[in-house]
Amino acid sequence: MTTDKTIPRDRAAYDFWTTVTLRYSDQDPMQHINNVAITAFLESGRAGLIGEIIGIPEKSGFAMVLARLTVDYLYEITFPQAVDVGGRLARAGGRSLTSHYAIFQGERCCVVSESVNVFFDTKTRRSTEPPEHIADRISAHLSANP
Amino acid sequence: MTTDKTIPRDRAAYDFWTTVTLRYSDQDPMQHINNVAITAFLESGRAGLIGEIIGIPEKSGFAMVLARLTVDYLYEITFPQAVDVGGRLARAGGRSLTSHYAIFQGERCCVVSESVNVFFDTKTRRSTEPPEHIADRISAHLSANP
Amino acid sequence: MTTDKTIPRDRAAYDFWTTVTLRYSDQDPMQHINNVAITAFLESGRAGLIGEIIGIPEKSGFAMVLARLTVDYLYEITFPQAVDVGGRLARAGGRSLTSHYAIFQGERCCVVSESVNVFFDTKTRRSTEPPEHIADRISAHLSANP
Amino acid sequence: MTTDKTIPRDRAAYDFWTTVTLRYSDQDPMQHINNVAITAFLESGRAGLIGEIIGIPEKSGFAMVLARLTVDYLYEITFPQAVDVGGRLARAGGRSLTSHYAIFQGERCCVVSESVNVFFDTKTRRSTEPPEHIADRISAHLSANP
Repeated sequence: MTTDKTIPRDRAAYDFWTTVTLRYSDQDPMQHINNVAITAFLESGRAGLIGEIIGIPEKSGFAMVLARLTVDYLYEITFPQAVDVGGRLARAGGRSLTSHYAIFQGERCCVVSESVNVFFDTKTRRSTEPPEHIADRISAHLSANP
Repeated sequence: MTTDKTIPRDRAAYDFWTTVTLRYSDQDPMQHINNVAITAFLESGRAGLIGEIIGIPEKSGFAMVLARLTVDYLYEITFPQAVDVGGRLARAGGRSLTSHYAIFQGERCCVVSESVNVFFDTKTRRSTEPPEHIADRISAHLSANP
Repeated sequence: MTTDKTIPRDRAAYDFWTTVTLRYSDQDPMQHINNVAITAFLESGRAGLIGEIIGIPEKSGFAMVLARLTVDYLYEITFPQAVDVGGRLARAGGRSLTSHYAIFQGERCCVVSESVNVFFDTKTRRSTEPPEHIADRISAHLSANP
Repeated sequence: MTTDKTIPRDRAAYDFWTTVTLRYSDQDPMQHINNVAITAFLESGRAGLIGEIIGIPEKSGFAMVLARLTVDYLYEITFPQAVDVGGRLARAGGRSLTSHYAIFQGERCCVVSESVNVFFDTKTRRSTEPPEHIADRISAHLSANP
């Protein structure tokens, strides 16, 4: 099997960081952190990245929802040492935004992931184009962090 | 953005089914089922499929661990109606097994997903080839369900 | 140690039932269902009970939030057999409602629990008295199911 | 309704601390941290406390399992500020150990909780008395931290 080599595996490639503490209940009978918990860590990174770079105000009537998620589980994560989730914007489409994440436990890159989020109108509950000032903020961030 | 069209979206394509009841806490502030909970539903389907088709005995010294997960979130899932998770084997590699899943709420296919599991030696905690009788059982199932 | 003997442990004592399917990720390294997952099962029973008996309409501006939870873990619950959560109203206070739950796996009562919920104004985010028609419905239910 | 006043609500009363980062998926449709996630935070505190004070070696054939949990939810916890879980031993029985926890978000005590754990033989899967050196360690800790 092959893993996604287009997602960086070195800390230097990521410009937004979130620390996630592990919980005993994140573990499964294999005595390691369960894959489901890992998708919660990725969402923590994503929520931080979107909050920081995009800054969607609450009750603005629009949001970003996850449309596609890819996760490569490279190494086991084990309780209890906290992990660091690195995130970066990868590219923007008309109604979507692709971002990359890597989870490190100590120096080891244990997980890489790609998320595609779509802009979402919370009234119609359908995908939409982002407001212009948000599209501009994303373009500016992508230009500055190629 | 594009979604994975190689994963079937009709019930007829799946031969193993698992019902998953929804929990209030699966929901998030968007008033729908959170993407993290959905990966737990997929794991329920996967555990069922692997248990049924492969039947790994406990304490056999080997297991299957998730190496790669792809999820396309096509439609929102909303509390409280239970979902059905359809599963099927897609293909086998020397040390890995690829399977497909679709989650239905009522008649609507809300999620499709591909998992790659690797055979895993629980003592060395590394990937391994499966015992011959298990490789045979997988081949037989794939031949019978092309 | 002592367990709460005021909460019934027989199926006949419960008048509202919710089935909860177990998930692989509900398990922990002890090879049993983790106590945290069990509180999600209890919440499933509670959401069902409150929905059925009280029937709070969405966007009514009021809700019930959990104020106090007591759980006695009597026997291990093990993957994968689904559990049944029995629920019953126990008593009502001016701003609160106490309910009892028992979780059965097969014929065994594995968990008993008491919840105290408070009526909650979603605008002020403070406890409140329930609307009269809801207080009446609760009184009627308690009279009919002593 | 009444809350448990025997569990301290000031930081000074706790001698073991665990920081827990919040996750987007810990939230529910009420726009606050769900009660189920809070029991995972409590378990994080408990795992830390038991690891630190008691130090059960893996594969020792014995463990501590949760027998009884009481949680008073005093104030809402909201995403995303991390919480601090304070823990302390309260008292020991022949086969059980009672501990207290308080969860703080900033300066506010949002949750207090009491846990009763029992010593557990992982082979028979029944409660047991702790090995003497562990009973001694607990007595010493309780004497030093009355």
